[in-house]
Amino acid sequence: MTKESTTIDVGEPSTVTKSSSHVVVDAKKKKGFVAAAAGGGYKRGLAIFDFLLRLAAIGITIAASSLMFTAEETLPFFTQFLQFQAGYDDDPTFQFFVIATAIVAGYLLLSLPFSIVTIVRPQAVAPRLILLISDTVVVTLNTAAAAAAAAIVYLAHNGNANTNWLPICQQFGDFCQAVSTAVVAASIAVSFFILLIVISAISLKRH
Amino acid sequence: MTKESTTIDVGEPSTVTKSSSHVVVDAKKKKGFVAAAAGGGYKRGLAIFDFLLRLAAIGITIAASSLMFTAEETLPFFTQFLQFQAGYDDDPTFQFFVIATAIVAGYLLLSLPFSIVTIVRPQAVAPRLILLISDTVVVTLNTAAAAAAAAIVYLAHNGNANTNWLPICQQFGDFCQAVSTAVVAASIAVSFFILLIVISAISLKRH
Repeated sequence: MTKESTTIDVGEPSTVTKSSSHVVVDAKKKKGFVAAAAGGGYKRGLAIFDFLLRLAAIGITIAASSLMFTAEETLPFFTQFLQFQAGYDDDPTFQFFVIATAIVAGYLLLSLPFSIVTIVRPQAVAPRLILLISDTVVVTLNTAAAAAAAAIVYLAHNGNANTNWLPICQQFGDFCQAVSTAVVAASIAVSFFILLIVISAISLKRH
Repeated sequence: MTKESTTIDVGEPSTVTKSSSHVVVDAKKKKGFVAAAAGGGYKRGLAIFDFLLRLAAIGITIAASSLMFTAEETLPFFTQFLQFQAGYDDDPTFQFFVIATAIVAGYLLLSLPFSIVTIVRPQAVAPRLILLISDTVVVTLNTAAAAAAAAIVYLAHNGNANTNWLPICQQFGDFCQAVSTAVVAASIAVSFFILLIVISAISLKRH
């Protein structure tokens, strides 16, 4: 069946007589309409799900980025020279997290038009392929941000006795709370991306 | 053209007369052979490239995992009670790195038969789809391992004055060197995975 389906794409002049080939083409067109409607149906459903997932992912990544950006805690005591304060800019990994998740949110916003194109034309290959490949690149950025921040958050919670890095979450509890939530949000965004890529893969294949 | 190609998959009884349809099927088969050879050609090339990339990725992930696993340094001085030693098991992130990259290498090994199937049958959809989806899941594991370890390696090199975490690479230079190399190797494996996913995406689409 699949072997036969690939035959038509060549478009060479057929060796059959004109009259019979005309009849076949008519029949083909009829069947093509049915097939396109059926295939288009589930692919359009996938495309709509894709669009909604992107909207949700935009919300979650913006939340993650802004949560990390605004995470700040000033301890209620201070000496003459020193005020005890924790913010996202205390750690380059947290800065990377803020920038990376903001980029991911921006990318998702820019990808919405392509997602709309796949709703309007579920059979179109090009926008699907563009979405799949760029999603793949961006998901690694998102995962890297989440994982790197998670490693630092773990350290902030538990410290590391071997390297003499003391936990700071006892002092900066609220800061740690906000930062941990941001990491969880970014991780949820990663799972959304995996779903998006699976959707694109299923939509790309010949049904 | 693409619309016509989707028609054939329905497989309904054709409305044309038997004799003429027989002729068309013969012609189709002939064309199908040509199309399969042309489409199969570049897809087979992609499948072979996919297989070679997987072999390279296996080598790199095994190297990353074993490099991190064997990274160890004992300082040449010690007190009566304490010996200064650094190993991968001093940090849970490094332990996660060793386990995660080993899992990735094992997955890549198990994916080789599927890759061989796509070389033998370049038009087959199922193994391609399986590879693409599982590659997507595994690339996030690989990225998470590399990024988390990178965050800790950065900390080991530079420390963090705000949280009073001192750099340890001045003391454990060789250990830091080995660990950094492992992180770089894992990052290269991530880029290989992105290439693998792009290959699968291109192979999945109707040509």
